[in-house]
Amino acid sequence: MTMVCLSDFEAYAKKYLPKIAWDYFAAGADDCNTRDENILAYKRIRFQPRMLRDVSVMDIRTKILGTEISFPVGIAPTGFHQLAWPDGEKSTARAAKAMNSCYIASTYSTCTLEEISAAAPGGLQWFQLYIHRNRAASQRLVQRAEALGFQALVLTADLPYTGKRRDDIRNGFRLPPHMKLKNLEGDFEVCKMSLLDPSVTWNDIYWLQSLTHLPIIIKGILTKEDAELAVRHGVQGIIVSNHGGRQLDEGPATIDALVEVVEAVQGRVEVYLDGGIRKGSDVLKALALGAKCVFIGRPALWGLAYKGEEGLQDVLRILQDEFRLSMALAGCARVSEIGRHLVQFSKL
Amino acid sequence: MTMVCLSDFEAYAKKYLPKIAWDYFAAGADDCNTRDENILAYKRIRFQPRMLRDVSVMDIRTKILGTEISFPVGIAPTGFHQLAWPDGEKSTARAAKAMNSCYIASTYSTCTLEEISAAAPGGLQWFQLYIHRNRAASQRLVQRAEALGFQALVLTADLPYTGKRRDDIRNGFRLPPHMKLKNLEGDFEVCKMSLLDPSVTWNDIYWLQSLTHLPIIIKGILTKEDAELAVRHGVQGIIVSNHGGRQLDEGPATIDALVEVVEAVQGRVEVYLDGGIRKGSDVLKALALGAKCVFIGRPALWGLAYKGEEGLQDVLRILQDEFRLSMALAGCARVSEIGRHLVQFSKL
Amino acid sequence: MTMVCLSDFEAYAKKYLPKIAWDYFAAGADDCNTRDENILAYKRIRFQPRMLRDVSVMDIRTKILGTEISFPVGIAPTGFHQLAWPDGEKSTARAAKAMNSCYIASTYSTCTLEEISAAAPGGLQWFQLYIHRNRAASQRLVQRAEALGFQALVLTADLPYTGKRRDDIRNGFRLPPHMKLKNLEGDFEVCKMSLLDPSVTWNDIYWLQSLTHLPIIIKGILTKEDAELAVRHGVQGIIVSNHGGRQLDEGPATIDALVEVVEAVQGRVEVYLDGGIRKGSDVLKALALGAKCVFIGRPALWGLAYKGEEGLQDVLRILQDEFRLSMALAGCARVSEIGRHLVQFSKL
Amino acid sequence: MTMVCLSDFEAYAKKYLPKIAWDYFAAGADDCNTRDENILAYKRIRFQPRMLRDVSVMDIRTKILGTEISFPVGIAPTGFHQLAWPDGEKSTARAAKAMNSCYIASTYSTCTLEEISAAAPGGLQWFQLYIHRNRAASQRLVQRAEALGFQALVLTADLPYTGKRRDDIRNGFRLPPHMKLKNLEGDFEVCKMSLLDPSVTWNDIYWLQSLTHLPIIIKGILTKEDAELAVRHGVQGIIVSNHGGRQLDEGPATIDALVEVVEAVQGRVEVYLDGGIRKGSDVLKALALGAKCVFIGRPALWGLAYKGEEGLQDVLRILQDEFRLSMALAGCARVSEIGRHLVQFSKL
Repeated sequence: MTMVCLSDFEAYAKKYLPKIAWDYFAAGADDCNTRDENILAYKRIRFQPRMLRDVSVMDIRTKILGTEISFPVGIAPTGFHQLAWPDGEKSTARAAKAMNSCYIASTYSTCTLEEISAAAPGGLQWFQLYIHRNRAASQRLVQRAEALGFQALVLTADLPYTGKRRDDIRNGFRLPPHMKLKNLEGDFEVCKMSLLDPSVTWNDIYWLQSLTHLPIIIKGILTKEDAELAVRHGVQGIIVSNHGGRQLDEGPATIDALVEVVEAVQGRVEVYLDGGIRKGSDVLKALALGAKCVFIGRPALWGLAYKGEEGLQDVLRILQDEFRLSMALAGCARVSEIGRHLVQFSKL
Repeated sequence: MTMVCLSDFEAYAKKYLPKIAWDYFAAGADDCNTRDENILAYKRIRFQPRMLRDVSVMDIRTKILGTEISFPVGIAPTGFHQLAWPDGEKSTARAAKAMNSCYIASTYSTCTLEEISAAAPGGLQWFQLYIHRNRAASQRLVQRAEALGFQALVLTADLPYTGKRRDDIRNGFRLPPHMKLKNLEGDFEVCKMSLLDPSVTWNDIYWLQSLTHLPIIIKGILTKEDAELAVRHGVQGIIVSNHGGRQLDEGPATIDALVEVVEAVQGRVEVYLDGGIRKGSDVLKALALGAKCVFIGRPALWGLAYKGEEGLQDVLRILQDEFRLSMALAGCARVSEIGRHLVQFSKL
Repeated sequence: MTMVCLSDFEAYAKKYLPKIAWDYFAAGADDCNTRDENILAYKRIRFQPRMLRDVSVMDIRTKILGTEISFPVGIAPTGFHQLAWPDGEKSTARAAKAMNSCYIASTYSTCTLEEISAAAPGGLQWFQLYIHRNRAASQRLVQRAEALGFQALVLTADLPYTGKRRDDIRNGFRLPPHMKLKNLEGDFEVCKMSLLDPSVTWNDIYWLQSLTHLPIIIKGILTKEDAELAVRHGVQGIIVSNHGGRQLDEGPATIDALVEVVEAVQGRVEVYLDGGIRKGSDVLKALALGAKCVFIGRPALWGLAYKGEEGLQDVLRILQDEFRLSMALAGCARVSEIGRHLVQFSKL
Repeated sequence: MTMVCLSDFEAYAKKYLPKIAWDYFAAGADDCNTRDENILAYKRIRFQPRMLRDVSVMDIRTKILGTEISFPVGIAPTGFHQLAWPDGEKSTARAAKAMNSCYIASTYSTCTLEEISAAAPGGLQWFQLYIHRNRAASQRLVQRAEALGFQALVLTADLPYTGKRRDDIRNGFRLPPHMKLKNLEGDFEVCKMSLLDPSVTWNDIYWLQSLTHLPIIIKGILTKEDAELAVRHGVQGIIVSNHGGRQLDEGPATIDALVEVVEAVQGRVEVYLDGGIRKGSDVLKALALGAKCVFIGRPALWGLAYKGEEGLQDVLRILQDEFRLSMALAGCARVSEIGRHLVQFSKL
């Protein structure tokens, strides 16, 4: 089987992962409309490509929070990587480092932060955080992450409660006994989401800032109003995200929400996006609409499911090649040439 | 079989109900476009969810005509509940009371008003009325309902004649011999819809008002003009409804019509809606667009078909949980925080 | 088999007609987009029904060119009725008369005008005309029609050449040897469409007017410009038609074109429509948008194929019942109450 | 098998061509959205046909760059015709000449320019050029073409790199050993696209102009900005093209891009189009929107695959007949009568 595009990895994962794991990764909330819209929305955006630009020397590098990455695609935080590959998040960390990409490790990793950090020394890693009712535990996580060299804190804002994912309920999804949410051992019982604190508000950003010198990125913003609040509360970045369509069904596709967030932010902080990225040209569209970088969730898991670290590198390499080619065919030789003029929204 | 969402009950009912009963409940007029549009229209409404609101304490109670209900979902009037479950409307009444919901009993019930009332003493019950050519008979029904403690009168305005439901014609639908339209015995022959009076006009509202002290709610309004007339004629509430798509095919979906009715009414009376509610997030959308409460028709029948009173409670409980979760994920901790800002109409 | 709606007759005809005849009747030009759009366009028009009008006494009669018909649906001109039923156009004429409807007999009938006229003495009949290169022959047809009591002349304007109907080419369609275009015998060879005159222009209306005292109706108009020209050339009526999608593919659906034609005509002449009428509510929509009457083509042929004269009466009766019911459910008791306010175009 | 429309040739080619060749010709970039949109976009354009024009004498001839052709359809440049038919481009050249059409021979022909020219002496032939890194080789090609009597140079602007065509990668597509890119022998190794020069810019138009007296046409323009640049750099014509959807996926359909290019150009140079032409009415739409002529790519290959020169003539003859009929049914007797008023964009 030749792996030509990300759908090939998806087909592989669907075929070879245990059904309960595939279902968990694939799950969207309710009718999965938002999950699917994340992808469909890209089809309604049309390029306006320019010709006869010198694209002989392509430079697809960019910087996020000041650090250079090989191209504007990172690994979004997703949980339970051991469901996809025995080495779990260690493999993810190694692949991200090998590709000079950014990896956002999830609180709900099946490896410890220490293992993740040690697997890819010097790699660009951010740490994703949920705020738990047990604030002291959250504080310890933040401080461990900072001490280990994670370079930013990504606060997930869209999960006061877990979305309703029908297949997980039908399957009675839970982690197999040999997997653990290792970062939470001691502080929490495993897999009790209800330990998350649904009373978190914008003021808790100040609390987080008091705990750490790390830049804080807020993930899960979908409106201009919240984007404005984020900036006012001093975050360093915003990830436009609907949690892969796993939380509130029938909210906007992230690529649609990106437009209003970028407009509200006006360049005061960096704006990223996750959700629905399946081709290099999706990355190009997101950048044309103002994203500094995008993050992939499910495709990374498919890569892991295919061949672990190597498979994830394959996924990233394909995206990278496709992104570079799309840029060239649209007439851009470097990331700074990508702009709003490159795309228009189809009325259909 | 785990019942996870309302579609599971629908699948169950389709499988286990006699075809003639399933077809009767499922029927829409003509090509069933409006029946289906009632559902599809929700997909075109997108949430604009807000993050980092304190949603730790959720309060989903509301009031309709001054009476508190546990959440803004009631049982719409539908006929012939014994087709779904032997105890018929008695089970419906019990489930509604158990869930502290509102039950609108239909004139075409297969239990008497007295049985319905006695099945759930103290429960919130409204009585749905058709005006018959035999006005004295209608008057007796109204007065029985008032005497029994029904708390409002719901006048159906969209059935001067019965819509054309092709499957019912093909099936030669009629009630099985052991079921009766018990509220009409003596006054009418069973199942002769032509006893309805197609000459009813707005002035008959005054006649109704002369018969009863109960608040009058008009059901079947789809335009701003009729909403204005309803208010002027002194009704206490409007149910935006197209009779589940069973009357005039190719009218508006109720969630679309709601917008213009709410705008016309300007808060002078309460506005409710039925038609197409299948998920808790549909309820949230209807409230965001100005409905005070919604009513479910077919899903209640599916619940009855599944396990009678218990099945209907399951349906209501699932809707309740989904509604609460949708609210929280959209950033609302109580019903009063739900507003127009929460949604936008997709252009697609 | 219970015949409940027009689709039932379509299914019957598709099953029992010889394939070559079914294909001929069903054919559209090229990709059949316009044929199908004629039907789909109705789905994009939504009723805005009004409630609590007195609809106890329904009057669905109307007048066309001053003559009363039982309801606003007539029989459009189509050729070769013997392909559907042995008695051909004689059956059509009888059914139309029995239903007090209007029948537009086609030049390409398989019965003579004399036979058609004699089959339904006193029935309302119009005669459809193509102008042939042999003008004298056309003149004789007009004068025969006038002498026989046909009450209007319907000039088809959209067939300078025959549209490309792929299935007819594949089937090598031609009339079976025992059928004749009886009105053309002597003057033409059978089935050579190229005898039609593609040089006809608006001035030929004057020529027609010089031959007959009959009112002239022009069929095949789709634009406001041509509607204006028609009025200026003194026609008495316009049939908005695209020849059932059999001529130029990818022109407008007739119900869409109706709007601009009605606006241009401003009541100076009567405007009719054919194409895509499949339900009584389609008739109501056409009238709401300004048509005085509509005509059915293929459904009439399906009726003939089902049971000849009787089958066509069934089709008309179903349409009549559906139309009456739609009117009542929309709040109109008589045709004069139908108006533009009843419908809106969906944006979808 | 009767060949009635172009889809019949497509079905034939799909059935009888080797899969690897069919896939190569059919391929689009990435998800093939643009390839398919090229066709779908025509469905959203509606004719506004005019009636009762004298269309008895039809004249469908036009001129491109001053040379008369029998109707406004030419053969777009496509590579590797021997994959479709043993005689390859020689057959194409003969068919084009027989139909008095224009043939744009591709650099990537499997016959030499000399063979192509000799196959159809006196035929209207243009030469399509890629600019290679080896500029001297490109110069030799230009000068050979000019010497052989090719009448224009068509510079392809949209292929700095080859688009990603998944099936070709899966198939490991390459030319069979007995076929050669004969025009490149000696100068290049066969099938190494990377010999194309991705540094080409608008200034290279001046270089080309310095090499030849031939008019220069630029192919692959999709925006008004590039159209303006093309005019300013002195080209004689523009082909609105997206390379049949084989380069950047999710750019505009060519018929949509045509509108803005025509508006920008304002008649200063001739504008042509390729992509998605499948019926005579598509040609009519393109001309109504301002194209002087259109070119067919895949349909020409299907014709070759069917019966070589004869099959391609069949394809052109069918298109010609369909175009003539569409014109007549739309009310135009000659090409000069075709205009913007004939079409409107559907909002759907």
